[in-house]
Amino acid sequence: MHTILYPTKDKWEGITGRPHIDASQLCENVSAILSEIRKRGDEAVKEYEEMFDGIRPEQLAVTEKEMAEAERLVSPELAEAIATAHHNIRKFHESQRFTGNKVETMPGVECWQKSVPIEKVGLYVPGGTAPLFSTVLMLATPAKIAGCRDIIMCTPPARDGKINPAILVAARIAGVSRIYKAGGVQAIGAMAYGTETVPKVYKIFGPGNQYVMAAKQQVGIADVAIDMPAGPSEVCVVADASATPEFIAADLLSQAEHGTDSQVLLITTDRHLISNVEKEIKQQLENLPRKEFAEKALDNSKAVLVETLDEAMELVNAYAPEHLIIQTENYNETAEKVINAGSVFLGKYACESAGDYASGTNHTLPTHGYATAYSGVNLDSYCRKITFQHLSEQGVRSIGRAVEIMAAAEQLDGHKNAMTVRIEHINR
Amino acid sequence: MHTILYPTKDKWEGITGRPHIDASQLCENVSAILSEIRKRGDEAVKEYEEMFDGIRPEQLAVTEKEMAEAERLVSPELAEAIATAHHNIRKFHESQRFTGNKVETMPGVECWQKSVPIEKVGLYVPGGTAPLFSTVLMLATPAKIAGCRDIIMCTPPARDGKINPAILVAARIAGVSRIYKAGGVQAIGAMAYGTETVPKVYKIFGPGNQYVMAAKQQVGIADVAIDMPAGPSEVCVVADASATPEFIAADLLSQAEHGTDSQVLLITTDRHLISNVEKEIKQQLENLPRKEFAEKALDNSKAVLVETLDEAMELVNAYAPEHLIIQTENYNETAEKVINAGSVFLGKYACESAGDYASGTNHTLPTHGYATAYSGVNLDSYCRKITFQHLSEQGVRSIGRAVEIMAAAEQLDGHKNAMTVRIEHINR
Repeated sequence: MHTILYPTKDKWEGITGRPHIDASQLCENVSAILSEIRKRGDEAVKEYEEMFDGIRPEQLAVTEKEMAEAERLVSPELAEAIATAHHNIRKFHESQRFTGNKVETMPGVECWQKSVPIEKVGLYVPGGTAPLFSTVLMLATPAKIAGCRDIIMCTPPARDGKINPAILVAARIAGVSRIYKAGGVQAIGAMAYGTETVPKVYKIFGPGNQYVMAAKQQVGIADVAIDMPAGPSEVCVVADASATPEFIAADLLSQAEHGTDSQVLLITTDRHLISNVEKEIKQQLENLPRKEFAEKALDNSKAVLVETLDEAMELVNAYAPEHLIIQTENYNETAEKVINAGSVFLGKYACESAGDYASGTNHTLPTHGYATAYSGVNLDSYCRKITFQHLSEQGVRSIGRAVEIMAAAEQLDGHKNAMTVRIEHINR
Repeated sequence: MHTILYPTKDKWEGITGRPHIDASQLCENVSAILSEIRKRGDEAVKEYEEMFDGIRPEQLAVTEKEMAEAERLVSPELAEAIATAHHNIRKFHESQRFTGNKVETMPGVECWQKSVPIEKVGLYVPGGTAPLFSTVLMLATPAKIAGCRDIIMCTPPARDGKINPAILVAARIAGVSRIYKAGGVQAIGAMAYGTETVPKVYKIFGPGNQYVMAAKQQVGIADVAIDMPAGPSEVCVVADASATPEFIAADLLSQAEHGTDSQVLLITTDRHLISNVEKEIKQQLENLPRKEFAEKALDNSKAVLVETLDEAMELVNAYAPEHLIIQTENYNETAEKVINAGSVFLGKYACESAGDYASGTNHTLPTHGYATAYSGVNLDSYCRKITFQHLSEQGVRSIGRAVEIMAAAEQLDGHKNAMTVRIEHINR
């Protein structure tokens, strides 16, 4: 870790900066694949599966037989852990249900919002060495609570043509309607445009590598909504002298093991804490299977010493971290100062992995500074708020004249006339 | 209007289809302008202003003197109408304030959401012949309620270098922090990247022509959030025999006058209504200043006769209109069937122009079928929901084991270890 002592504000940009992600080089390749999927549907999806995942799926849809087999293959211990996590994610996201009020803005003018689920959503779950069944829970559980009619999921098969059983079990528990064996750009294209087998959806959710991200960006311009832009995962820990170095080291390492591009930042008011955390990191690193990733990520990570917790929080807000862990004595007070962050973990026991898996909060969060403008995935991500209004005769009397005057001033006489014919009608 | 009688479902796609918008031809021009703004800031903004708006602003920021002058120029009648509209928009959007609950998902595990305003937002208000001061109210009022710290606005000056006084008055009433004389792609670029004068924002809102839309799409990929994708404005009217043809004609015309690409759709269960509406349209059209626009838009519009209101609503949901007017006897019952729409107007007195200006609902709404996945602008558009969590020792006992098992199964031992060190700590 680079240690930075009492940086002046002109140094902050260097601390909060992220590596530039240039997806433009991928654009052409990604466009070409998307265009093939659009034109040739299932056949193109299968071809790209063979090319990129080394297996041509006989059929894209996962069968009931495969689902049943998966249930047998997952250990009872893991199934129970998944059920616990699902319980908590469901409980927290159910608490986010919207209840709107009718508002009478003026006599006879009633306005209200109604939350209506997006009918068709598509979830993308990456493949690779580790099966991300926790992502299945995070994306599908709120979709089910929202009441989305079609919840489809795409995930690439392994070389043996199968999908990891934990992914299938999590999908069943969380309420996914249908699962398809497709990964990468071809999966995003299939969900954005629809194929013979894969239905077109209205919104696509989920993480992925830079190709998946570039594909989501391209289809997200005009074809389909997407959850949010993405970048490498990040954690920022704010700590004072009361914090436990062992915990902080473990938290930093849990982020660092994601990959060499992971962003790790420690901000503290306590000089000794930095060296104590570094000692702990060295020790814990020895036992970490993904040691190599973690070491490289730590090379790029920073420990920053600041004068006060207020300054620490100012730096946090300039950084806008995906995950923010606050291990200070008065963490509730510190937390009041959060403006830009995806998800915040308070106190010494709330490690990031609690929220990554099982506390109930969502782990699909804005990275790369996008927390300045985006929320993490939540129940609202699967709904639209539709506005309704009703005017009585009295309502026309309340706002009719204002509408006429404003429409005329905007030179939209048709707009004015739509109100005028009503005013005349009730005055007849 | 084209009349379509009892179309079978295979004909629906032809009815609900929108004209294809291909912004790709604009892409290069738009990219080039954005790139110049990024590189050369204010100087480039001024150059493009001279090129496209025919005037090189001496300074971009609107002065206090110009604000004061505007207040003198707006008629008391219009100022009062703007104040009425602002009152209602504020009242409705204030009712959308979020109050979250702390949820204990398991003993000792507390999760909650907090709604936090986006710090810096940029509003774009187009120029042109008609001053869209209503858009200023619609975009700035919720930003102010949300508590956004910097609410900046860009709008192009007229050839005399001035901004329409109604726009400035609306901006002051609604709470805009600073106003800049910039339009088109250069305005979007200035807000996305920041210049010497115009601050960089985190999210850009507002309508515009195809160049503005293309610019928003480009900066929206990774630089800044945007409100939503956009297309030509639309209205769909659902009516039965109880509806008033005079009102429907006025509503269709109020949409049609927007421009030749406006989308207008009437769906009814009553055959006679169609001819009666057509007669009314002919008559009302005579007195409409924007008759030429409206006539062309009506050429592309459709009146569809269906068997039942259920079928009508099924067709509505397939179309996903920006504005939906329901003029049926039991409009509340009909409204229950709305799945895809931006904003819904119920009964014979709720004309679209009521919501366009003064009822209190927002008029920045998803067009082009985007209502399937996007909400119109509302208070949430200016906020993020940040999640927080706290675990006590008991909380670690509640979910610790599940986290360990899941992290191990995803082969993320660092994640597992962050929980393990805490479990061991409390068991010591």
